[in-house]
Amino acid sequence: VNGEQAYIRWLRQRWVAHPRVLVGPGDDAAVLTWPSDRSVVVTTDMLMEGTCFVLAQAGARRVGRKALAVNLSDLAAMAARPVACVVSVALPQVGGRAVAEELYLGMEELSKAFDIPIVGGDTNSWSGPLVIAVTALGECGPRGPVRRRGAQAGDWLLLTGPLGGSLLGHHLTFTPRVREALTLVDLVRVHAMIDISDGLSTDLAHLCQESDCGACVEAALLPIRPEAEQFDDGRSPLEHALHDGEDFELLFAVSPEDGASLLADQPLQPLGVHLYRIGSCRSEKTLTLILPDGRSQPLVPRGYEHRLD
Amino acid sequence: VNGEQAYIRWLRQRWVAHPRVLVGPGDDAAVLTWPSDRSVVVTTDMLMEGTCFVLAQAGARRVGRKALAVNLSDLAAMAARPVACVVSVALPQVGGRAVAEELYLGMEELSKAFDIPIVGGDTNSWSGPLVIAVTALGECGPRGPVRRRGAQAGDWLLLTGPLGGSLLGHHLTFTPRVREALTLVDLVRVHAMIDISDGLSTDLAHLCQESDCGACVEAALLPIRPEAEQFDDGRSPLEHALHDGEDFELLFAVSPEDGASLLADQPLQPLGVHLYRIGSCRSEKTLTLILPDGRSQPLVPRGYEHRLD
Repeated sequence: VNGEQAYIRWLRQRWVAHPRVLVGPGDDAAVLTWPSDRSVVVTTDMLMEGTCFVLAQAGARRVGRKALAVNLSDLAAMAARPVACVVSVALPQVGGRAVAEELYLGMEELSKAFDIPIVGGDTNSWSGPLVIAVTALGECGPRGPVRRRGAQAGDWLLLTGPLGGSLLGHHLTFTPRVREALTLVDLVRVHAMIDISDGLSTDLAHLCQESDCGACVEAALLPIRPEAEQFDDGRSPLEHALHDGEDFELLFAVSPEDGASLLADQPLQPLGVHLYRIGSCRSEKTLTLILPDGRSQPLVPRGYEHRLD
Repeated sequence: VNGEQAYIRWLRQRWVAHPRVLVGPGDDAAVLTWPSDRSVVVTTDMLMEGTCFVLAQAGARRVGRKALAVNLSDLAAMAARPVACVVSVALPQVGGRAVAEELYLGMEELSKAFDIPIVGGDTNSWSGPLVIAVTALGECGPRGPVRRRGAQAGDWLLLTGPLGGSLLGHHLTFTPRVREALTLVDLVRVHAMIDISDGLSTDLAHLCQESDCGACVEAALLPIRPEAEQFDDGRSPLEHALHDGEDFELLFAVSPEDGASLLADQPLQPLGVHLYRIGSCRSEKTLTLILPDGRSQPLVPRGYEHRLD
């Protein structure tokens, strides 16, 4: 009685009709309506037990939540509005049903908060560690997507929140900056944007490489999470903030005029989010860190990268 | 030098512009244009090493091909036209780059054949077995999707090809019935459709359950692949054809009139595909197998189901 099909019946019982969903879970594929002036934004992320989380510590519910949250963060980085998602899982055979339900309940929490129905998936079991892959679809209105490319020399670099020490818990509980991104593109022209997943140093390098520019970051301006100070690993809180990753804050480039007005007005305050200026883009294609004492040094990308020998 | 970023550079060098793709690989998400009268069809499937394939036997290239092919088969089952796909992988750390390239080349083969660009993904490495999850997007025109529900008592059940013994190789090399499905919905009203992934007995049960009907299958009409006879496991070729799964043929229900004309005209012959009638739907909500000698017996779903204790 306890198998894939019983779980799918449980899922379908939880299904709630949604105006955008013509066909939901339980067919060969899901079908969505799509308004005529909107492009389709699609992103996917996979989390693997032991690499992206420790199941016994995190609990399956927070893993499910994170699996959707990281995808929502990617949609936010494009300034896209979430529409629907699908999820593939490789579950343990023993205890897999309970894990499946907890994963789902964790996803469902964000699914409801961001109105992104879970319209389908693929449920598997095996003898390996837990793997969950979510694909999220979003839509862009006439303003179009915001890309990594588009930053210009002189642009201010703004950040939606403090960085560092995410491993101590934030990576499982963060709120993806979807509403923040949509608010920002309504107010100003965002030239380029990325979410901080691999670490500020690495993600800033991505943004600059795509935009064909460089940047300087002022250490004194960088907001640092208190958790970044709770390590005894010989690395400073600043180093944690620069390189840890999984912060899932948005880093974006705007004109100095727009930047100044955003800093003054703090339009994301109703969402509980403070905007920080951390530096500027420049034409010289290098990354520089200006230390609090005024000295400067190269900012070397040292964020997370998957090894592939 | 050999890491995720180097692989992504390799991927982006292979990227070819596509009229539907506004943003391809290398940003936080991909962006597609979408025509105004078409719904979005989305499906996802995950393949895990050791469960869905043996990497040393299959080779990564055929695994990549299969990962996309099973998704194309799901799009075909909805009579959707492929538009784009994304792929998430968990690769081995040692030798992972070579595996990644082979997976990609296997996907690329089908990507080109079915005009479904690989617009993005997530590349990870870990110490576990290879996992690949593909999500495919398709579109439906004004005829809308064909669902599992919709079959009516009296409908003929047709099949696009012989079944059984797929494990001996067909599951890695099959051609998803995308063109066949699109041709069929242009010619007749297909009441309900499903692809045979879990096994005819199980997938027919799905179609009947969704359609609120039953069916009888005539064993004498069932086309059986020669490979179904190459087992020495005490199960007959008929049993292999009924329950093996991973055939990825389409099973569909049409009116007897449409069924008769499809059988007479064989409109898929230019695609190398012969249509077979294997039985009928009926109002009594059970599945029956009519044996070659005329006796009948219940057809019990014994196809593949993932265990979840």
